[in-house]
Amino acid sequence: MEKSMDFRTIDWVNGRIKIIDQRQLPGRLSYLHIKDLKRLWQAIKTLTVRGAPALGAAAALGVYLGVKNRSFKNFNDFERELKRVIGYIASSRPTAKNLFWALERIRRAGIKDPRRPVSEIKKAILAEAKKIMEEDIISCRKIGCFGAKLINHNDAILTICNAGSLATVGYGTALGVIYQAKKEGKKIKVYSCETRPILQGARLTTWELKKRGVDVTLICDNMAATLMQQGKIDKVITGADRIASNGDSANKIGTYDLAVLSRYHKVPFYVAAPASTFDLEVKHGKEIPIEQRPAEEIHSLFFKKRMAAKGIKVYNPAFDVTPASLITALITDKGILRAPFRESIRRMIP
Amino acid sequence: MEKSMDFRTIDWVNGRIKIIDQRQLPGRLSYLHIKDLKRLWQAIKTLTVRGAPALGAAAALGVYLGVKNRSFKNFNDFERELKRVIGYIASSRPTAKNLFWALERIRRAGIKDPRRPVSEIKKAILAEAKKIMEEDIISCRKIGCFGAKLINHNDAILTICNAGSLATVGYGTALGVIYQAKKEGKKIKVYSCETRPILQGARLTTWELKKRGVDVTLICDNMAATLMQQGKIDKVITGADRIASNGDSANKIGTYDLAVLSRYHKVPFYVAAPASTFDLEVKHGKEIPIEQRPAEEIHSLFFKKRMAAKGIKVYNPAFDVTPASLITALITDKGILRAPFRESIRRMIP
Repeated sequence: MEKSMDFRTIDWVNGRIKIIDQRQLPGRLSYLHIKDLKRLWQAIKTLTVRGAPALGAAAALGVYLGVKNRSFKNFNDFERELKRVIGYIASSRPTAKNLFWALERIRRAGIKDPRRPVSEIKKAILAEAKKIMEEDIISCRKIGCFGAKLINHNDAILTICNAGSLATVGYGTALGVIYQAKKEGKKIKVYSCETRPILQGARLTTWELKKRGVDVTLICDNMAATLMQQGKIDKVITGADRIASNGDSANKIGTYDLAVLSRYHKVPFYVAAPASTFDLEVKHGKEIPIEQRPAEEIHSLFFKKRMAAKGIKVYNPAFDVTPASLITALITDKGILRAPFRESIRRMIP
Repeated sequence: MEKSMDFRTIDWVNGRIKIIDQRQLPGRLSYLHIKDLKRLWQAIKTLTVRGAPALGAAAALGVYLGVKNRSFKNFNDFERELKRVIGYIASSRPTAKNLFWALERIRRAGIKDPRRPVSEIKKAILAEAKKIMEEDIISCRKIGCFGAKLINHNDAILTICNAGSLATVGYGTALGVIYQAKKEGKKIKVYSCETRPILQGARLTTWELKKRGVDVTLICDNMAATLMQQGKIDKVITGADRIASNGDSANKIGTYDLAVLSRYHKVPFYVAAPASTFDLEVKHGKEIPIEQRPAEEIHSLFFKKRMAAKGIKVYNPAFDVTPASLITALITDKGILRAPFRESIRRMIP
């Protein structure tokens, strides 16, 4: 097994969801073994596990956790509970499409054949959740292979947040492209935006790039513009949490900033995501729900003490939306999509 | 005395430089009384006192601290020491023009009349330093009055870093404009970029705006783009550390980012600074020296623990340069300057 597969962000082990506790990184690589639904919900809410594809896997396994130890009088009784569990997990975070996509797959697996004994249905749910995990790894590999074709030897690539192994089951979307390019012998230099307020870039992306031997330089988010001005950035690659049917892409706050900067400096701007991140029911970015998170994340969370005056207001959207017009190409597990995106997306997901 | 003058960032009191210890804000308003040159140098280096106009005042008073208790055999002896002290203070930080401008004014005051007794020359140096301080307050008031004409009732204004009372002797450049507009009865909403890595926006700007009763909302630097996309920002006003003769302006890292975003979203972008920030010997922004600061500021300084993987590289420029072409107008103490800036600057500083 190659070095890049040396850890899995999420797995099903001994009847529990095994996840990397991302709140402990980069200091310590430790795992949590989650055996009840409420703790899984909290792990999602507190970003202990995060990243759109990883959230899909967590949600799927979470449904199984929610139903596996309960007994049901009949299928209707089971279906009611399935619906409740799915609704509960869906309430954890609103933006990442993969979470809802995985819940829908699990729901379908659960109601496919009402004549089966519930014990069989439970097994089918676990099997579907495992399939979602395995497919995610394969998807990332494909994204990596398609995307690596866009990368040149000696490219300097800017990324934001963490769209790597830690955001997926185990390889990465935006970082998957970088890992594959490196594997193909291309020399790559990566600039990682620290990604305020939760610092996924500083804490997670530098950690996994360093672990994989990729040359990485950490910057504050507000330093990307000066790097582009100096001609130091060849490409920007980010992940996505939800992509509308016209190609508008929601991703970590700050992504839209980079997209505007890229346009101004004529730097190609790529978004890497699997098909499960696309939401064809959403016509354009304005319809994507954007999670607002607590003020405390900005003024106190990681700090030794409160870092802003008391009594002020704080605005803390977790995501922003990059219009398709600023995206050079979408790197998916089905290939590279280019404008007009409504058509290329429709061809990919008929 | 009006409420907005209720504190001074720097003053000369009982033979010492009295400064607000900005490292303690927003938690505590405390003062340092500096009586030797080395401690002043450290206060500048560690950003205990910062902001281009405040640095000018600190540098000027610092020269007096450096010479006041020494005895000199003759004028040549004095002049040698004056040169050494000025060189030492000049070595503290490279970007803010006001620091060098103030040192040059003090040097001239010191060498103006070599026939005076050195004790008289020392008095002249202190008098010049005090004059620099008083002029700074007046300059800020003028910037406020000129700038307030550009502000409309109900404007939402975005700013970065701290270009307020805490960056000057006592009123502010960019924030001086806001204070004056408020005084004129205009309702203003301010968005303050937290300004990584040193968080001057979060720690200082929210503190002084709150203290003065200005409606302020704190954001992370990477949230400015989404606010502009939503049409929530009417104007951007920043300070400057050095302005070249063509109008290119060096200011806190992240300013150039906001300038590009402003252009893309058609938001007016203003830079507020006194004449002492202009450097006519610098033809364009590329010639402005940009201070690089320690990696630790990004990965550890304010945090409970190290927030990035070990062994990675960090890029930490303290400033960036906004080309004049992205600046709607320069708000100075001599009036509003517009393009072509080389001409309007030349008219202001003949």
